[in-house]
Amino acid sequence: MPTLAEIAGLLNVSLPDGADGGREIVGVSTLDEARPNELSFLSNEHYVRELATTRAAAVLLHRRLKGWAAAGTPVPTIVVDDAELAVAKVLGLFAPDVPRPPVGIDPTARIAPGAAIGDGAAIGPNAYVGERTVLGRRAVLHAGAYVGDDVTVGDDCEFFPNVVIRERITIGHRVTIHANSVLGTDGFGYRWDGTRHVKIPQIGAVVIEDDVEIGSCVCIDRGRLSSTRIGRGTKIDNLVQIGHNVQTGPHCIVCGQVGLAGSVTVGTGVVLGGQAGIRDHARLGDGSILAACSAVMDDVEPKSVVSGVPALPHRQTLREQAAIRRLPDLVVLVRKLEERLAALEGKDDKVTR
Amino acid sequence: MPTLAEIAGLLNVSLPDGADGGREIVGVSTLDEARPNELSFLSNEHYVRELATTRAAAVLLHRRLKGWAAAGTPVPTIVVDDAELAVAKVLGLFAPDVPRPPVGIDPTARIAPGAAIGDGAAIGPNAYVGERTVLGRRAVLHAGAYVGDDVTVGDDCEFFPNVVIRERITIGHRVTIHANSVLGTDGFGYRWDGTRHVKIPQIGAVVIEDDVEIGSCVCIDRGRLSSTRIGRGTKIDNLVQIGHNVQTGPHCIVCGQVGLAGSVTVGTGVVLGGQAGIRDHARLGDGSILAACSAVMDDVEPKSVVSGVPALPHRQTLREQAAIRRLPDLVVLVRKLEERLAALEGKDDKVTR
Amino acid sequence: MPTLAEIAGLLNVSLPDGADGGREIVGVSTLDEARPNELSFLSNEHYVRELATTRAAAVLLHRRLKGWAAAGTPVPTIVVDDAELAVAKVLGLFAPDVPRPPVGIDPTARIAPGAAIGDGAAIGPNAYVGERTVLGRRAVLHAGAYVGDDVTVGDDCEFFPNVVIRERITIGHRVTIHANSVLGTDGFGYRWDGTRHVKIPQIGAVVIEDDVEIGSCVCIDRGRLSSTRIGRGTKIDNLVQIGHNVQTGPHCIVCGQVGLAGSVTVGTGVVLGGQAGIRDHARLGDGSILAACSAVMDDVEPKSVVSGVPALPHRQTLREQAAIRRLPDLVVLVRKLEERLAALEGKDDKVTR
Repeated sequence: MPTLAEIAGLLNVSLPDGADGGREIVGVSTLDEARPNELSFLSNEHYVRELATTRAAAVLLHRRLKGWAAAGTPVPTIVVDDAELAVAKVLGLFAPDVPRPPVGIDPTARIAPGAAIGDGAAIGPNAYVGERTVLGRRAVLHAGAYVGDDVTVGDDCEFFPNVVIRERITIGHRVTIHANSVLGTDGFGYRWDGTRHVKIPQIGAVVIEDDVEIGSCVCIDRGRLSSTRIGRGTKIDNLVQIGHNVQTGPHCIVCGQVGLAGSVTVGTGVVLGGQAGIRDHARLGDGSILAACSAVMDDVEPKSVVSGVPALPHRQTLREQAAIRRLPDLVVLVRKLEERLAALEGKDDKVTR
Repeated sequence: MPTLAEIAGLLNVSLPDGADGGREIVGVSTLDEARPNELSFLSNEHYVRELATTRAAAVLLHRRLKGWAAAGTPVPTIVVDDAELAVAKVLGLFAPDVPRPPVGIDPTARIAPGAAIGDGAAIGPNAYVGERTVLGRRAVLHAGAYVGDDVTVGDDCEFFPNVVIRERITIGHRVTIHANSVLGTDGFGYRWDGTRHVKIPQIGAVVIEDDVEIGSCVCIDRGRLSSTRIGRGTKIDNLVQIGHNVQTGPHCIVCGQVGLAGSVTVGTGVVLGGQAGIRDHARLGDGSILAACSAVMDDVEPKSVVSGVPALPHRQTLREQAAIRRLPDLVVLVRKLEERLAALEGKDDKVTR
Repeated sequence: MPTLAEIAGLLNVSLPDGADGGREIVGVSTLDEARPNELSFLSNEHYVRELATTRAAAVLLHRRLKGWAAAGTPVPTIVVDDAELAVAKVLGLFAPDVPRPPVGIDPTARIAPGAAIGDGAAIGPNAYVGERTVLGRRAVLHAGAYVGDDVTVGDDCEFFPNVVIRERITIGHRVTIHANSVLGTDGFGYRWDGTRHVKIPQIGAVVIEDDVEIGSCVCIDRGRLSSTRIGRGTKIDNLVQIGHNVQTGPHCIVCGQVGLAGSVTVGTGVVLGGQAGIRDHARLGDGSILAACSAVMDDVEPKSVVSGVPALPHRQTLREQAAIRRLPDLVVLVRKLEERLAALEGKDDKVTR
């Protein structure tokens, strides 16, 4: 277990006077739950009051957070530029290894004769690798993971159990796909011919760029003619639907249960809140933010924040919501105004008659 | 097949005069579809009129339901306190057994040497049980079910095909998990460091208490530091997303496609309607009810009912919705009022001038 | 590769003068991306301007689309009644074959002794076929697909990897089910008995009629007493939830992440937009259309279009939305009107006093 001094070294900060640098730290915990041999942190104003009673070995403090200086705490404090980033680093010291199949190919795995498996790959029980597929170095296929024909996978990728990657898909380096997700299902396209829905063949592919992470039960469909593409460093949560021909830029955050209809274009660094739905062909500008549960029917301006059903600029939604809160009273008020006006008109009739 | 008298015995009620207790009953059906050898029931006012024409062997009547006494029916009736509960009991007589792998371990299953399998367990083809994992008595793992390392599973649990239970998860007694659900995916946590989203390690676990039932394609993520927890007797429908560190109380009902963002706290006996979305850190009080499709942005009071986007107390939502129904007319009315007022001001000007 | 003349023949149209019928066509692409050996098409006014600069071998034009006659293009044009249908046909020429397991039964597949497998079936690695189950001719079960006991599957069906089809389900001819979908999970039904949620046995089945296509991670639950049914030719996108006893008519389109609560009845040719939610027991009339993200709380009239939360006739929703856009200004206006009215009343008081 690392000492407090070693953790300070990792974070490139110095310990405060009086802190016991030699103390062994066994984990990270919240302020109220931390034991005397655990590190804690404060990155959210909500929890400032817990500083006073924490029993943690030391507390990482977010430099720009207000209120902690005044609050006081009985334990040593370490001020860092970004407590969340610092915690992410420290947690790395305590994170248990993810159990993985051993390097090599499990005897029950099915590897097509023409597949190429990179050095150091670990292929688990009942995994499947198709014809002409190339897996990069140190690929990890957990039990039951399926990679179809003509797929290219870069180095250091990990596919959890029962992931299904259909044929003709390209995946970059350091891509993680969690259990039971499916890449490369046919896009959803039909044309009514007067008697039935004729299927429009979906002959495109899917491209997943480097450093993408994809949650569980996510569906990413193949393009109709060209490719559906997920940009470098984009992170996708569970149960997300990504339709055919969607293009996302790099470094997007796609929260749980988001649905992107066909041909949506997402810029760089866009954040899509949970359960947001985006209609087909919409364009989401760079750095835009979609609030959770919003229903996006139009293009979204770069760096804008939209919310609501239908989604509008967030300030407008707030203004309208505030007005709707008053609407029932407004209806009553207008009725009274009408009565007062009618009374006045009656009098006025008499006056001017 | 049970006789009508045996069914009455099961329900602890007596048969009405003239009912043929020796009649064999072969099933339960709706009033309009029941054949003369089937039992039927009435638990919903909607269907009172079908009493007059039903051909069922007998009808279970919900005591407090209005209208059935007046309606009349040609078949024997059995009044019970709760017709739905009575039907649930009777259906148990007719429910076909769920097909299960035979007791024992299928030769194609992969059981880690250090795993412990309880007496009477049935492990199907290609199932996977990880190192140091303990499965309780009579556990059923259907084909392709995956249980990772260091998992503890109580007695009488059943995991349907292709369920994925990742490492370090604790599951109580009598827990059922339906096909293709995933427990223990990393929580969705990243921190932007200026150039990329840094992953925050998710080193917590998942705890599923006794008597929980989980539908298909459900995702329950592991906690960041501590555990995500599903309380005793809680029932979860299909395609639900449960984020890291969520805590649900006992006896909750979580309908299909609900999404709970990270760190949501759900009280005892809470009902979450289908597709409801709940923002991170929200607290849902004991006995609260969330309407289907509601978007919960704030804490919810105990025993309250909320609905809408954003969710508000249900009465307020109804009041606002009613006012919105009138809003287009209100806009027109106000315009007319303004004209009338302007006319009056004009006259008034003349009068007072 | 087909020639341009062969493609014209397939579409039953004649080539324009000057078109090189002998030219080999290697694919279909969008107007801006098509190379000189690819066919392109115009079916959407958005892209008319791209006609002028396309390098395609020829362009399929949608007869009723406006603007293309005036736009002009340097390449041969072929006018068809429905460009999307024509593209669907032509794409069939270029669609790569879906990789499938070879005809026969993989040695690792598990086929119950009493199962009957049709001629020409292809059963992949680790697939599972239960007792008394009948698979039709040319059935394709990809790796890890699971078909339980007492299931009947028609001819020419294809189930992608890790699909789970539970016991006692009936599937017609030419049904495709994409990866990781689950049919036949217990419907979600419990009854509170004062101390716990008692499970209501779900002893019904699921019926999937001919020519249905079902996406990935779709859940279709079994009925409580009778069957959940998906009508002939209906197409279902990914991550859709279909509750117990739902009945859909033929030729419906169910977009991604739609949720149908229990006992919903859907007519013929209904279109359900993405993420739409429909409450239990609602009836959707023939030919009705539900906008994306709508929350349907009541029955929907045949041939009507509904949208919004809660869903209303689309025109009404548009009218209300337009009024809400003006609501903040309306609140201000009414306040001013009240002031003006009060002023007038004050003067009036003086005048009439």
